[in-house]
Amino acid sequence: MKKQYLLAPGPTPVPPDILLAMSRPIIHHRSPDFIPIIQQVRSDLKWLFQTSQEVLTVAGSGTAGMEASISNFMSPGDKVIAINGGKFGERWLKIAQAFGVTPIEVKVEWGKSVDVNLVADLLSKDDSIRGVYVQASETSTGVAHDVQKLAGITRSRENTILVVDAITALGVVNLPMDEWGIDVLITGSQKALMLPPGLAFIGVSEKAWKLQASAKCPRFYLDLKREKDNLLKDSNAWTPAVTLWIGLAESLKMMRAEGLEKIFSRHARLAKATREGVKGFGLEVFAKDLPSAALTAVVSPEGIDGQAVYKNLRDQYGITAAGGQDQLKGKVFRLSHMGYSDVFDVITAVSGVEMVLVRMGYKKSPLGSGVAKAQEILIQE
Amino acid sequence: MKKQYLLAPGPTPVPPDILLAMSRPIIHHRSPDFIPIIQQVRSDLKWLFQTSQEVLTVAGSGTAGMEASISNFMSPGDKVIAINGGKFGERWLKIAQAFGVTPIEVKVEWGKSVDVNLVADLLSKDDSIRGVYVQASETSTGVAHDVQKLAGITRSRENTILVVDAITALGVVNLPMDEWGIDVLITGSQKALMLPPGLAFIGVSEKAWKLQASAKCPRFYLDLKREKDNLLKDSNAWTPAVTLWIGLAESLKMMRAEGLEKIFSRHARLAKATREGVKGFGLEVFAKDLPSAALTAVVSPEGIDGQAVYKNLRDQYGITAAGGQDQLKGKVFRLSHMGYSDVFDVITAVSGVEMVLVRMGYKKSPLGSGVAKAQEILIQE
Repeated sequence: MKKQYLLAPGPTPVPPDILLAMSRPIIHHRSPDFIPIIQQVRSDLKWLFQTSQEVLTVAGSGTAGMEASISNFMSPGDKVIAINGGKFGERWLKIAQAFGVTPIEVKVEWGKSVDVNLVADLLSKDDSIRGVYVQASETSTGVAHDVQKLAGITRSRENTILVVDAITALGVVNLPMDEWGIDVLITGSQKALMLPPGLAFIGVSEKAWKLQASAKCPRFYLDLKREKDNLLKDSNAWTPAVTLWIGLAESLKMMRAEGLEKIFSRHARLAKATREGVKGFGLEVFAKDLPSAALTAVVSPEGIDGQAVYKNLRDQYGITAAGGQDQLKGKVFRLSHMGYSDVFDVITAVSGVEMVLVRMGYKKSPLGSGVAKAQEILIQE
Repeated sequence: MKKQYLLAPGPTPVPPDILLAMSRPIIHHRSPDFIPIIQQVRSDLKWLFQTSQEVLTVAGSGTAGMEASISNFMSPGDKVIAINGGKFGERWLKIAQAFGVTPIEVKVEWGKSVDVNLVADLLSKDDSIRGVYVQASETSTGVAHDVQKLAGITRSRENTILVVDAITALGVVNLPMDEWGIDVLITGSQKALMLPPGLAFIGVSEKAWKLQASAKCPRFYLDLKREKDNLLKDSNAWTPAVTLWIGLAESLKMMRAEGLEKIFSRHARLAKATREGVKGFGLEVFAKDLPSAALTAVVSPEGIDGQAVYKNLRDQYGITAAGGQDQLKGKVFRLSHMGYSDVFDVITAVSGVEMVLVRMGYKKSPLGSGVAKAQEILIQE
């Protein structure tokens, strides 16, 4: 008997009540039973995104949301700034290129946050740049970018939108869409929303809708205007992923019951406890600047393969964390503390890492030294 | 207390065993637990599609599959024949136009099947036509098109693919992809596959893959080559809709246990019983040519609004059927017999229609006359 612990940065654990809601007999998406679900979701997503605008839900992965944020607002030949500090930053470049949009790459060393001044400079020199694309939390590195500062720059430009991939940030940290002036805000179901993968969510500002009207990149399935027109009638453009919507209604109820402030402070505390925990055990957090509150990338100690740590966590203790991606493969392992996550998930993560590393020959710190540091944070509530 | 019966052409009922499988704690899509699921799904989808090629699965609705069948195989300016005999036929035109592809419309009167000779003529006059797009079953009208005959025409043309929307046909009627020479075969999860909505499936022939290599329509999220490259490594391009995949593995096991021949004969029998049932009650089936085996569109009797029939079925008897769409709104109602459907679903449908119509003043036939006709078919096994 080995219990399983899912501590990967998506999919994250789905609370039993949501699993149960989704296992009820399926209903039809045009039936009167589904309309209150659409209405609740419309209202609660506005609350979660902190916006008065409609938030669109599409059946697809987070990448579908990222693609929609380019194909809906840009035309071939348009220039956009793509902030690239990790695997998901890179994806902006690839999507832009696929649609004939010209990305101006702002390359950021993996582990660091973007220098906002660089973006301001680029924008000040070129009036025609139509978008700034950034991750609020770069899942491959566990680093956050300063969305509020970026919004401060784009806000005053009539024809430049700020597009934020908040797939591992929304419902984790404060990202008040309307207050800060974020134009397109994207998330996915399998992260802080505590749902299985299969839904992407896109909030769109009034400024972005204006650009959408003249944007010429081809789009059909991911045409957000069509989704919005249908949503305003409590309907969907295409057959929605009904069970995921039913889970979504449950998840949003749970989130509203907790409240945004408590959700953010819980994530901040769990993240800090994880960082202090691994540091207390003598390990290094990969993030050099702003660490993400959703997950922590930990540098694998000298002589120990990060992939082996990840595999041993799984095989020896039933903990599914994540390894490093691309250039970080073998160099880091990643621990999520996002979504349906609390005190003892952090304790599990830190103590699991300690036991695995000690079994692999790590001698720098004794068992329990990291756990104690995590507890010191977690005990403060 | 009113029991609920889902008899709409998608979503169709999900068997309890599949609901239970999907309600297990979620697993990670890169964990060793998920690999056997991918492997089973790869193998079983080939069996279901009757092909030796990989079948791609994307998180999205059936429309995502339709879009992929244009964006992956066509370039802007390419000409394609779009067979349009209903709401879903129309969608080919809209998607083609969104991507700058030129549709040559073959308009078919709603209720009729396409005249294959018209398609043959158009093709014989123009070597540059790159695709023929058709529904195997047009869900808005309950009519089938003759896919085998169309494949007989396209098969010998090196640069023309036959694209078949089999969203309400695959797993209902025989569509042997390789044997007939269907190039792109599309279905969705929420129909004969007995799953919730949220997955689209696309089978691609060798000929279509050759066209894909030079097709220039932009695609990223729905890039089938990227999906295939990942699938060959038992992986996915993007985070898959894990719970739906787990349900899929269950559903395909159930389908294999029944076997293709029995699945097809069951659907044929249920469809015939539904048609004979409503005719036995004095009603008219909307399909003038090949009726679909997935659903039956029934003409609402003179003076009775089809939408009211649909609503009364729901409100008086808890039966969720479907009304008519667009030009058929009010003129027909639609009864599904697809997927997790057997003898008493047809009896429920026909007897429910009888009771609703008698309550609405219909006097042409007595209660039970349709049910008796349905039973005459259903008793023959």
